[in-house]
Amino acid sequence: MEKINVKHMTLEELENLCGNIRTRIIEVVSKNGGHLSSNMGAVELIVAMHHVFDAKKDPFIFDVSHQSYTHKLLTGRWEEFSTLRQINGISGYTKPNESNSDYFVAGHSSTSISLAVGVAKAIDLKSEKDRVTVARIGDGAISAGMAYEALNELGDRKYPAIIILNDNEMSISKPIGAISRYLSHMMAGEFYQGFKKRVEKFLDYLPESATYMAKRFEEGFKLITPGMLFEELGLEYIGPVDGHNLKSLIETLNTAKKMQKPVIVHAQTKKGKGYTRAEGELEKWHGVGPFDIESGEAVDGSSEKSATHLFSEVLYDLAKTHKNVVGVTAAMPNGTGMDKLMKEFPTRFWDVAIAEQHAVTSMCAMAKEGFKPFIAIYSTFLQRAYDQIIHDACIMNLDVVFAIDRAGIVGEDGETHQGVFDISYLSAIPNITLFAPRDENSMKYAVEFAFEHKGVCAFRYPRGSFIKFKEFKSVKFELGVGEIMKEGKDSIAFIGYGNGVAKAYQCMKLTKKDITLVDLKFIKPLDEELLKHLSCICKKWYIFSDSAKIGGVGEKLSSWLSKNCINNVEIVSFEYEDRFIEHGSTKDVEMKLQLSPEQIIKKINLK
Amino acid sequence: MEKINVKHMTLEELENLCGNIRTRIIEVVSKNGGHLSSNMGAVELIVAMHHVFDAKKDPFIFDVSHQSYTHKLLTGRWEEFSTLRQINGISGYTKPNESNSDYFVAGHSSTSISLAVGVAKAIDLKSEKDRVTVARIGDGAISAGMAYEALNELGDRKYPAIIILNDNEMSISKPIGAISRYLSHMMAGEFYQGFKKRVEKFLDYLPESATYMAKRFEEGFKLITPGMLFEELGLEYIGPVDGHNLKSLIETLNTAKKMQKPVIVHAQTKKGKGYTRAEGELEKWHGVGPFDIESGEAVDGSSEKSATHLFSEVLYDLAKTHKNVVGVTAAMPNGTGMDKLMKEFPTRFWDVAIAEQHAVTSMCAMAKEGFKPFIAIYSTFLQRAYDQIIHDACIMNLDVVFAIDRAGIVGEDGETHQGVFDISYLSAIPNITLFAPRDENSMKYAVEFAFEHKGVCAFRYPRGSFIKFKEFKSVKFELGVGEIMKEGKDSIAFIGYGNGVAKAYQCMKLTKKDITLVDLKFIKPLDEELLKHLSCICKKWYIFSDSAKIGGVGEKLSSWLSKNCINNVEIVSFEYEDRFIEHGSTKDVEMKLQLSPEQIIKKINLK
Repeated sequence: MEKINVKHMTLEELENLCGNIRTRIIEVVSKNGGHLSSNMGAVELIVAMHHVFDAKKDPFIFDVSHQSYTHKLLTGRWEEFSTLRQINGISGYTKPNESNSDYFVAGHSSTSISLAVGVAKAIDLKSEKDRVTVARIGDGAISAGMAYEALNELGDRKYPAIIILNDNEMSISKPIGAISRYLSHMMAGEFYQGFKKRVEKFLDYLPESATYMAKRFEEGFKLITPGMLFEELGLEYIGPVDGHNLKSLIETLNTAKKMQKPVIVHAQTKKGKGYTRAEGELEKWHGVGPFDIESGEAVDGSSEKSATHLFSEVLYDLAKTHKNVVGVTAAMPNGTGMDKLMKEFPTRFWDVAIAEQHAVTSMCAMAKEGFKPFIAIYSTFLQRAYDQIIHDACIMNLDVVFAIDRAGIVGEDGETHQGVFDISYLSAIPNITLFAPRDENSMKYAVEFAFEHKGVCAFRYPRGSFIKFKEFKSVKFELGVGEIMKEGKDSIAFIGYGNGVAKAYQCMKLTKKDITLVDLKFIKPLDEELLKHLSCICKKWYIFSDSAKIGGVGEKLSSWLSKNCINNVEIVSFEYEDRFIEHGSTKDVEMKLQLSPEQIIKKINLK
Repeated sequence: MEKINVKHMTLEELENLCGNIRTRIIEVVSKNGGHLSSNMGAVELIVAMHHVFDAKKDPFIFDVSHQSYTHKLLTGRWEEFSTLRQINGISGYTKPNESNSDYFVAGHSSTSISLAVGVAKAIDLKSEKDRVTVARIGDGAISAGMAYEALNELGDRKYPAIIILNDNEMSISKPIGAISRYLSHMMAGEFYQGFKKRVEKFLDYLPESATYMAKRFEEGFKLITPGMLFEELGLEYIGPVDGHNLKSLIETLNTAKKMQKPVIVHAQTKKGKGYTRAEGELEKWHGVGPFDIESGEAVDGSSEKSATHLFSEVLYDLAKTHKNVVGVTAAMPNGTGMDKLMKEFPTRFWDVAIAEQHAVTSMCAMAKEGFKPFIAIYSTFLQRAYDQIIHDACIMNLDVVFAIDRAGIVGEDGETHQGVFDISYLSAIPNITLFAPRDENSMKYAVEFAFEHKGVCAFRYPRGSFIKFKEFKSVKFELGVGEIMKEGKDSIAFIGYGNGVAKAYQCMKLTKKDITLVDLKFIKPLDEELLKHLSCICKKWYIFSDSAKIGGVGEKLSSWLSKNCINNVEIVSFEYEDRFIEHGSTKDVEMKLQLSPEQIIKKINLK
């Protein structure tokens, strides 16, 4: 389908279009799952952007970009949109490889203003006066430090750039932080507006001798506009504007376009707008699986408890009996299972907004004060706090726990969200202990081990649920102790780590060989005794872990063998090759990577 | 020496003490080098902190902590201060291992407010009403995103905490960013103060009927205090106060102490205060080597050009002929050699303040627009931008260059500054090319290669200068091509990477064996042809690289051998073991680690 040209549409045509877009979004998301509320809320905003600006020349930068569905529908992807988030289909985020209308990759929050600054610098240097960069950021994303770093430069150097602040009074869950609070106060903007008018009227009645003072007063009152905070940071401010009123939006964006300055356009929108069941509901309708449009009920849904759910339950029990257990999430209370704890222990568990750096370092201080913090962050987002893990947790060697959720392939969210690097980037840091549970019971043991452990530790677990190991019962974690689950006669070891043990087990089920099955349990420190024994009984080691090959489990074991001058063991790792992994259901993605148990067994010829 | 008890000193005694402290700081820093200006500027502030608060119970949190010398002198380290920055001596930063008066490690900027929030939460939970956390942060450090993330939570949840903003109108070099600009405007605070007074007077004269309006006016004018921005973020604000006036400082801190709220105390200080030569001079006197007190001249100083200097020169030449070359530093213009380029090409080279995340992502946008950005950041600070490297540079596979300065042991700055993890954390990322120059000429070739390279690349180079390889001339970089500098007959290879080649070469000079000398040049991708050949002619490989062993060069080569089923080669790596490396001159530190060429040759028994 052709791109939809909204440039010359009438207001009525545009409004009709918005209706069609909403219908299409509900239609596809109810089948494929995806981000519903934010996309429903952003329809008019994106239509207005396309009406006023030209995505072919003006870079459209979507922060996080999970709310870019309307943009996709307008730029030649109406039909293919039915493949949303499916393997080889349309990505749930902007993706230049998919369409040159998508300016930049975005899946992590709060990069848009930095990108806008970079583009503005480029436009300036190239003197391309007919181009302007348009970034669209949510009120949640503006809580992250990097958004502020970018505003700090933009407000100082004053490059022309339009930042549309899509304010729906929530990030993913409820609004956190001073900025959110500030924006909420602005919502009651009538007061300011009314007050300003009254003041101006009042000044009109003052005697002439007061003119100087009056002028000063006016200067003073300028500061009482809602945009004060942004204006102090050197940015122009327009708003708030109703983000569902196309006419106002178009007028406002046209004004902003003419300004040739850095300007914040503050638009208020309603999440879920147009799908009654989602309107006003916060986290529930943010990211959804397939659902029935009429009833709003989820269509399928595993009956198994997710690893996250298990983590949450065990931590809850621990927190009940141990008052020193505290914890934090960075804007993912439901995603990490911290919501339950925040509700029950509101003075001990916090959501600090999209602020991974601050989450880590503030919890380090709590550890210094004798508390035991659990920091639950997705593998991919923990990258944001890498320096803090080194500098504030590990150099101090504090008793903090990193609960690394969404480790491995996360499925439909694709390359920006895969949690495959954590073993590589964490293992080089001194003073850190790394381990991983393989199933429900060992998740319980993992949380308990973390609680008892002295020093920094981190354990990883997958999105979704663990498999069940029928004939193997998991045992408690003991520092640096792995487990030979089964010794076989065929000199072949299937060595798993974390969720990789499941794959090793599934592969074992597919072969007639009498293999040795190992759960490493710890990747740092390694169980050297176990490995020495294993090197005697098995000369072929197959490695299973949902992590990047470089710096991953296989490489660690190769290095260990080399260091110990054991040169008669061959290692083959089924970790991920050195490329970014695209979206699709986890199963489909693994098939594409030739990493399903069947494919693996066929490849190594052990049927 | 005992701790100096400033609690009961009179103002005059305190003032005398400040004089003595300044003398002691100049005395030691002129001999040992260190941070001069910032410490000279912070004397009264820290003395006042100790007078008003109690470091034994009130956590004193120093941001970056390079300005904590006065604190060290007051807490039992007056004599040992003579060993400042020397091996086994007093650290240039706060360090709990050194003294329990040092609350937390800090060497990287902008962690203090997060720590303060964490401590405040802990104090709250423990109901320790007689404790309060006191953080001291500079105006430079407040530009980093994580400071803002922390303020965002503090202003929302309103834990009692005192944040002393030490405002000397500069971070390390000149002030950058909207916040700095904002603070500068506040400097001209007399206007606001005077204006406020006049307004209040004016309101007094208004007729009674205007009372309501008057009240509203006052509310309005509250907003015109200098602290407006902070107040909008939900924090109380006191200031500005003269940071060299002990009496005002003590009064102000006492006020803040009583408030039981989050409060910003804004103190203005003068960098270098008390040492005339340093006063007002910005970057020059920030961190210094030994100098003559009378003349202010540096005492020694290598005549060799530093790697940084070379980088700067080559990039300068490149930028002269290629208009698409742009670049960025995060508050280290002099440290990275970017100052020269910023001066010559002010529209193409930028200092974006302490904002590594924004630095990286904004340059990625420039790359998307066809420019070729050079991002010069120290290895240790690049950790702050790890997620941006993955998410904005590598997933997009853009033509950006990371010039990783201060790779390896940096010497006197110690564990928070050692640049030893970059190979480990970068190599796992798809689409990145990693290489390193070994000497002056190859630095030139490295910059040129980076300029020509398509895709993300990063090269690392050490603090200080390269050695000269008399009999070896370096050649241009070619993607993934290493260099056998010399083939020997004894089946022993000394394999170096980057500055490690120097060590390999120095070791070679100490042995009579006819060894093979290799410069890997690339660690990603590896030169597989070279390695295959090498595995045939040498069965013992010694690895030299100033990087962490885990995930480092040795492990990469072990893994490569394993993958290629080459099992008759033994690898020994002289990279750094898995612990944080303390401060001291690079030479002393290497001796302590048993990694001097003499020690290595003795250890491997090749004399």
